[in-house]
Amino acid sequence: MQKKVAVILSGCGVQDGAEIHESVLTLLRLDQRGVDVQCFAPNIAQHHVINHLTGEEMPESRNVLIESARIARGAIKDIRDADADDFDALIIPGGFGAAKNLSNFAIEGAKCSVNPDLLALAEAFAESSKPVGLICVSPALAAKIYGPGVTCTVGNDPETAKAIGKMGGTHKECAVGEIVEDEARKLVSTPGYMIAQSISEAAAGINKLVDRVIELIQVNDE
Amino acid sequence: MQKKVAVILSGCGVQDGAEIHESVLTLLRLDQRGVDVQCFAPNIAQHHVINHLTGEEMPESRNVLIESARIARGAIKDIRDADADDFDALIIPGGFGAAKNLSNFAIEGAKCSVNPDLLALAEAFAESSKPVGLICVSPALAAKIYGPGVTCTVGNDPETAKAIGKMGGTHKECAVGEIVEDEARKLVSTPGYMIAQSISEAAAGINKLVDRVIELIQVNDE
Repeated sequence: MQKKVAVILSGCGVQDGAEIHESVLTLLRLDQRGVDVQCFAPNIAQHHVINHLTGEEMPESRNVLIESARIARGAIKDIRDADADDFDALIIPGGFGAAKNLSNFAIEGAKCSVNPDLLALAEAFAESSKPVGLICVSPALAAKIYGPGVTCTVGNDPETAKAIGKMGGTHKECAVGEIVEDEARKLVSTPGYMIAQSISEAAAGINKLVDRVIELIQVNDE
Repeated sequence: MQKKVAVILSGCGVQDGAEIHESVLTLLRLDQRGVDVQCFAPNIAQHHVINHLTGEEMPESRNVLIESARIARGAIKDIRDADADDFDALIIPGGFGAAKNLSNFAIEGAKCSVNPDLLALAEAFAESSKPVGLICVSPALAAKIYGPGVTCTVGNDPETAKAIGKMGGTHKECAVGEIVEDEARKLVSTPGYMIAQSISEAAAGINKLVDRVIELIQVNDE
């Protein structure tokens, strides 16, 4: 049977939205593996807009769903319309959008809260033992989704690792191009551009993450 | 010696800028092949801004260089700072940005003009017999760069093919995932999302284009 994966985007650009390379690499590998993909994003204002040339904030407002639609070539839905029952797995690429739009981790750290629609969706995947893949800084949301004891990686960033620990998660260091798996929870994470120095390095880890998520779907099917 | 390729972006999103998948796939393949890449874009206002969720125009203004910086993760320069002498080849991904920002082909068709900075740069590559790769709708600029007699493809779109003919170019039909080469001019083109139905199909053609451009650099080196 055709496998279906929901991909959550958080805008369009590493500084204020979904990391574009990570998002496209995720979509590429899923498509190359014959998986049916549906992108979703929250229909909310971005935390802010960053000029990616200068790194400075821009005096304007953008919508996360509308900007995410650029990466998805229009084929994207409001996350409120996502039902875990319709999918075999969930993947969330990184970029600051995960920490600014999908949650407020970038501002609140360990005291962060997660967008309630995303949280409910991700919890539904977790509760039904469907695999979840978290890329780059997205694993900062793992403890909020799975509760204490969850294992994940953001590579080797000490601040983010410490915050994950404060939320009850267990951070495991991970080399570029590799993945960390919480076997009990079917949660796979990879550092992406938290440590990747090139798009090829990011691709190596994301390909492994996508492949492992697909394997875990097959385990569920057996 | 380390090969260097200039990649020209035209914004960030298929409807009003550079096609994101095509751009990222180009950067991925170049990096996987060990090529040094520098992105450039014109520092001009976009022709317009399109809501990629609805397809409707948005009442705002965005800058091509600043938006392109999202795809390039900030590592991008004004096209005015590009010198063909510093590079072995040039690649232009598609998206309507090529026909709305790099030129006005989307509005003027065969009577279009090309952004003067891009035109001068591309002509310098052509004059020094350095390979050029044009993806998706970008080959619509080929006759403006190379003059009459140039052969290229946009897949099988009759309107665009006809306009290329009117400008003095020769359009050659091309299957998805394939490339067309003008051997005398070292110009390689591939249809990309002009006909691709999936990101994998787009990747197949772009990988071939990048690989062929790299081969042609090696020919120049010998």
